[in-house]
Amino acid sequence: MSLVTADISVSLDLVAAGHDQSLEHPFGPVVGDRLHPWMFEHGDDSPDEIAGILRARAYVMGRHMFGPDRGAWDLRWQGWWGSEPPYHAPAFVLCSRPREALTMAGGTTFHFVTEGIETALERARDAAGEGDVAIAGGPSTLNAYLGAGLVDELRLHVVPFTVGDGLRVFDGVEDLAMVPASSRTTPHVTHLVYRRTSP
Amino acid sequence: MSLVTADISVSLDLVAAGHDQSLEHPFGPVVGDRLHPWMFEHGDDSPDEIAGILRARAYVMGRHMFGPDRGAWDLRWQGWWGSEPPYHAPAFVLCSRPREALTMAGGTTFHFVTEGIETALERARDAAGEGDVAIAGGPSTLNAYLGAGLVDELRLHVVPFTVGDGLRVFDGVEDLAMVPASSRTTPHVTHLVYRRTSP
Repeated sequence: MSLVTADISVSLDLVAAGHDQSLEHPFGPVVGDRLHPWMFEHGDDSPDEIAGILRARAYVMGRHMFGPDRGAWDLRWQGWWGSEPPYHAPAFVLCSRPREALTMAGGTTFHFVTEGIETALERARDAAGEGDVAIAGGPSTLNAYLGAGLVDELRLHVVPFTVGDGLRVFDGVEDLAMVPASSRTTPHVTHLVYRRTSP
Repeated sequence: MSLVTADISVSLDLVAAGHDQSLEHPFGPVVGDRLHPWMFEHGDDSPDEIAGILRARAYVMGRHMFGPDRGAWDLRWQGWWGSEPPYHAPAFVLCSRPREALTMAGGTTFHFVTEGIETALERARDAAGEGDVAIAGGPSTLNAYLGAGLVDELRLHVVPFTVGDGLRVFDGVEDLAMVPASSRTTPHVTHLVYRRTSP
């Protein structure tokens, strides 16, 4: 069955990005370098979790996940990832101004959606066919989908340090109940999987 | 070796108590009844974790963990727990006005400490001898000890619902690094253990 999944790396205090995104620091200077070594430096500890992140057949992301400030409608901006982004699938970018689809090397096409989170998800579902759709972040976009009850499987990758301030998963998401599915600890990260309660 | 431990039940968004403590609802009305069924209704799933909570030989707690408002210095107030509190050990209550020690049935004696968190911990260590000292909460008190780097083992019991607002573990605790020790999921709760990094 096709699922809506979301993987997100967070600090112990659930921060997924700083408030201070910039061209140099897409996740903010304090947070960015510390959230992702579990994938890049210590990926051998977490092969299944990394494979899970790459399994989706379509992605939805927020404006800031695609670019800084006006990135989503500045035609010169082609995303944070260079010419071959790691998605290798259609990616639907939530934004407020129209822009033509942008085809990159390696199978990623960015589609810009101005009609809101439900439309973006619907288009991603259509694109994914039988495959999963992943909410690729950032935290505000994920929180919007969590709050709307649209995420079937949430995979938190908890990195053991606190930040103190930033954009947190679950901010503004009130009274959401989930089903704890699994947890696994490596020396560098704790992987927590939660599923949506049955409707 | 004697450890400083802390067990705390939190929601998915790390809320351990509401802002709205009252006589009827020591944890606040929205939060209290939902954080502790893993211990009381589903305790058979988590025998080791419950045993861990009761293992300490002395406790430290904040003023609101002992009582509402002026509880800590109103001589009529003897704690939330009735005549036989569940600690069965000396418990050091952080407060701002002196009060004589209060001996309860079953081995609990409340000592009121006005000299701050380090003195309270020292007195609890002396009382515990070779045994562990537990920081019994609430969240603000735990955060003070976490921020000071004084907690050797933090055991989070994460209950799978979000609250949206309240007193959270790690609030105000910046740049604390810990070592993930273990994680375990039951249908009702996820138990996460973190240890202090070596000094």
